[in-house]
Amino acid sequence: MEAKDASSAGDDTALEASRPRTFIKDIVRGVTEELVGRKVVVGGWVKTGREQGKGSFAFLELNDGSCLANLQVIVDAAVHPLTQLVPTGTCVLVEGELKKPPEGAKQSVELKVESVLEVGPVDPAEYPLPKTRLTLEFLRDFGHLRARTNTISAVARIRDELAYATHTFFRKNGFRYVHTPIITTSDCEGAGEMFQVTTLFSNAEKVEKELKQNPRPSETDIEAAKLLVKEKGETVSQLKSSKASKQEISASVSELTKAKESLSRLEERFKLKAGIPQKDGKIDYAKDFFGRQAFLTVSGQLQVETYACALGNVYTFGPTFRAEHSHTSRHLAEFWMVEPEIAFANLEDDMNYAESYVKFLCQWLLDNCIEDMEFMVKNFDKAAIERLKLVSSSPFERISYTKAVQLLKNVTDKKFENEVEWGIDLASEHERYLTEVLFKKPVIVYNYPKGIKAFYMKLNDDQKTVAAMDVLVPKVGELIGGSQREERLDVLVKRITESGLPLEPYEWYLDLRRFGTVKHSGFGLGFERMILFATGIENIRDVIPFPRYPGRADL
Amino acid sequence: MEAKDASSAGDDTALEASRPRTFIKDIVRGVTEELVGRKVVVGGWVKTGREQGKGSFAFLELNDGSCLANLQVIVDAAVHPLTQLVPTGTCVLVEGELKKPPEGAKQSVELKVESVLEVGPVDPAEYPLPKTRLTLEFLRDFGHLRARTNTISAVARIRDELAYATHTFFRKNGFRYVHTPIITTSDCEGAGEMFQVTTLFSNAEKVEKELKQNPRPSETDIEAAKLLVKEKGETVSQLKSSKASKQEISASVSELTKAKESLSRLEERFKLKAGIPQKDGKIDYAKDFFGRQAFLTVSGQLQVETYACALGNVYTFGPTFRAEHSHTSRHLAEFWMVEPEIAFANLEDDMNYAESYVKFLCQWLLDNCIEDMEFMVKNFDKAAIERLKLVSSSPFERISYTKAVQLLKNVTDKKFENEVEWGIDLASEHERYLTEVLFKKPVIVYNYPKGIKAFYMKLNDDQKTVAAMDVLVPKVGELIGGSQREERLDVLVKRITESGLPLEPYEWYLDLRRFGTVKHSGFGLGFERMILFATGIENIRDVIPFPRYPGRADL
Repeated sequence: MEAKDASSAGDDTALEASRPRTFIKDIVRGVTEELVGRKVVVGGWVKTGREQGKGSFAFLELNDGSCLANLQVIVDAAVHPLTQLVPTGTCVLVEGELKKPPEGAKQSVELKVESVLEVGPVDPAEYPLPKTRLTLEFLRDFGHLRARTNTISAVARIRDELAYATHTFFRKNGFRYVHTPIITTSDCEGAGEMFQVTTLFSNAEKVEKELKQNPRPSETDIEAAKLLVKEKGETVSQLKSSKASKQEISASVSELTKAKESLSRLEERFKLKAGIPQKDGKIDYAKDFFGRQAFLTVSGQLQVETYACALGNVYTFGPTFRAEHSHTSRHLAEFWMVEPEIAFANLEDDMNYAESYVKFLCQWLLDNCIEDMEFMVKNFDKAAIERLKLVSSSPFERISYTKAVQLLKNVTDKKFENEVEWGIDLASEHERYLTEVLFKKPVIVYNYPKGIKAFYMKLNDDQKTVAAMDVLVPKVGELIGGSQREERLDVLVKRITESGLPLEPYEWYLDLRRFGTVKHSGFGLGFERMILFATGIENIRDVIPFPRYPGRADL
Repeated sequence: MEAKDASSAGDDTALEASRPRTFIKDIVRGVTEELVGRKVVVGGWVKTGREQGKGSFAFLELNDGSCLANLQVIVDAAVHPLTQLVPTGTCVLVEGELKKPPEGAKQSVELKVESVLEVGPVDPAEYPLPKTRLTLEFLRDFGHLRARTNTISAVARIRDELAYATHTFFRKNGFRYVHTPIITTSDCEGAGEMFQVTTLFSNAEKVEKELKQNPRPSETDIEAAKLLVKEKGETVSQLKSSKASKQEISASVSELTKAKESLSRLEERFKLKAGIPQKDGKIDYAKDFFGRQAFLTVSGQLQVETYACALGNVYTFGPTFRAEHSHTSRHLAEFWMVEPEIAFANLEDDMNYAESYVKFLCQWLLDNCIEDMEFMVKNFDKAAIERLKLVSSSPFERISYTKAVQLLKNVTDKKFENEVEWGIDLASEHERYLTEVLFKKPVIVYNYPKGIKAFYMKLNDDQKTVAAMDVLVPKVGELIGGSQREERLDVLVKRITESGLPLEPYEWYLDLRRFGTVKHSGFGLGFERMILFATGIENIRDVIPFPRYPGRADL
């Protein structure tokens, strides 16, 4: 009976596709002459709405997220109750005709509504995002609604464009996209500060719950069960030696089996222990999901190298994690990285790819995202578009670390907080001075002292520097870090040992050098840093949809 | 002095780009007439090598991962010692001239080597991947080398193509890519089985180490420090009231400050506790990195809905996680999902998008990846290409759940393990029967009983079914699951409560319905399942670069 009742909803005729919706971007960017007179269905959220002509009609500024611009929509009071439509945040799906607005209007076309198909209303007294200008900091408390603001939706479109540009660039250059793992048992930098991934807590909870519902069996219970197994076993032997009937024997064997199963269940339950499993005074990670300690990746580099040493040109683009207690405007606990890895490439090739990639991204935004970029210029950074043009068109400066140190030592117009000396890691103030003041364009610094760089970077012939490079850009400083990788087995072993790291976890990495080793290089671009660079927005928490940092992981 | 020494490596002239490498795909797919006579640099790994003509020259089958095909390379003994070049797995970078091989050769062009630029040798006695045919299971133990095999590199290229096709499809349809969070404090399905993300273990370790190095202060130490603060405070008061010199007062204030700081450090250290922090007999997650329990996401759907309710058409494509103890060939602990979310779309629109997306993927592989697909046909699944053609060209069958149950009840040629009755969740055997036997093409089943589906799916007017849909395909069964979302606040609240879930964690999700709610729909495609479907490979562990499952998280 139930089946019949339910089938009314299951009837094929009950389903009908929605009327096709026209994106507002296709209207505001279209050719006026072709648009005027066309009937369209448009849906979006009201940015501002106001009743006019003593309530006889309303103007709605409608945004559907397809572009920054709103469409002006006119609704007559006869078509729909206007008070329901005008509050900011209201969702409407309307149908109407595109018209030419009166002379002097801002837009070249507007929509005269013939019917309101759907409304998602808003109570203005409760809506958390009123029409007034809201700070980005305020909006962070409304992660689920902030995409409705001009800034965050523009950032989302710019982010999307940069992601697509990334895939396009690498594909054009013969790279394959490889999904490196998020959960890892390797620590790329040997730097610690990793998040641990575990089921030990939830397992402990389950055991605790289980023990609450069914208390652990006592030793007496176990002894009784053991005795039963012994007895049943003896019965089986007796019957067998007394040549009992097959039926009798089989029945007694079956009882023995049952007794054994019951014992093993009891023993299993007897072993259940509340709390985190311990062994020799330490947490017993053998009991964890992966049978060992597992972490969230800090970089896909080492893993993607295994694919570079097989497919040649590869890249990974995915989330990476740092469990650092940084509360700065430049750090996130979860962020996205683009990491290409190139076989048969040396440091110079690496720099060439890095430079053309960054140029490609900048040119892409100029070609595909100019409206949102103009919004950034108006609201966040007057120089944003100029910077994209500069970077996409002029060659990057390339200087050795040694040269950079010399230049910085000779600086007289600025006093650095951190003194410059050959051997130090360049601080952000040094990096930004090089790119913003000294060269006024992107700078690639290469050949760093080995003491401040990771073990996997290729040792130069001078035995003092490694074939590393950083791309520094105005506004954010370091945008890319990369290197030629050490492909010589003996040197790599020495470097790992010198760095105080154990060899065992890197045996697989060493295998790449043992078997068909290849010169190769790669780099990593912090995706959010690229967005900061492009938009001029100050805080990294505002350029990722759902920022994670100490104390905060909303949604 | 050091700077000068090091600058030799930092000299700009020391850097030179590599000679451009020609991809083997551009040679084997090129026009013979244009290629013959060209000088090229080619790099790759030797698949097979053999010395010929009494050691006067060698044939190398060279693969560079740019395509499945190898390039035949001929090296004279005079050019390079041949024994170093012929072992399987050897890496070479060579320069030479492309020639027409003798009549009857398999390839239309071969490379005559003029110089061997680089060699990464292999000791055949130690190389773990000999020339013989290796099982996929065996290869799983060599995650760092298996990309050098024909199968795994073909899978990698197919995976890359499907990823690019995904971005292309959604871009063409006006969708924006949104990076939903990996670390989350929401549980989309309310299903549990999530990995927990924590720094509690490493924090506890740090504290333990700290306490070992510097034992905790005793209460006597604290008392002494308190006394010192009191004394220094009294001194300050005395000096002030005795109108001592400013210098004297300032010195005593500074001593007081030091004493206070020292006390607070001692108190801080006194509070240090080894072990996982507890509160009221439970783990105190307020002390964890995010100030609360955090997990790895099981789906980006709920979060991406927030962007759909602002930007209209969006999708997320990223890793998702299940801490299930499944050891099947269909489950991974870490896998990738594609999840579009569409504003103003009902279930029929959702199905239309799902169908065109899957068709697009299939056609893409036929257009861009035919060589690798032919390899799959030859080695894994004779029907693989036929299946892609079928799916890309014929309309999917669409039937209601109720109809599906009727059809399955009438089946006489097969006995199902699970009995079919209206209300049950269709098992894999039912799904595969529908798509493989009954319709012999993809089938979309829609309008499922609400009891077996998630709370966020739109309740149909019959009050018994929800607007859910599953896309079933031959070979893998369920490929896509989707639904229209419940956009009515009151109904959604009721459904959450009925599902036994607390409302509080979903307040943000309810806000989307409180403020400008919109009809919307979406679906999720298991990316690895799509690859299984395309390639015919049996085990999901072989279609992701670094598989994670219970007990295993290599690299």
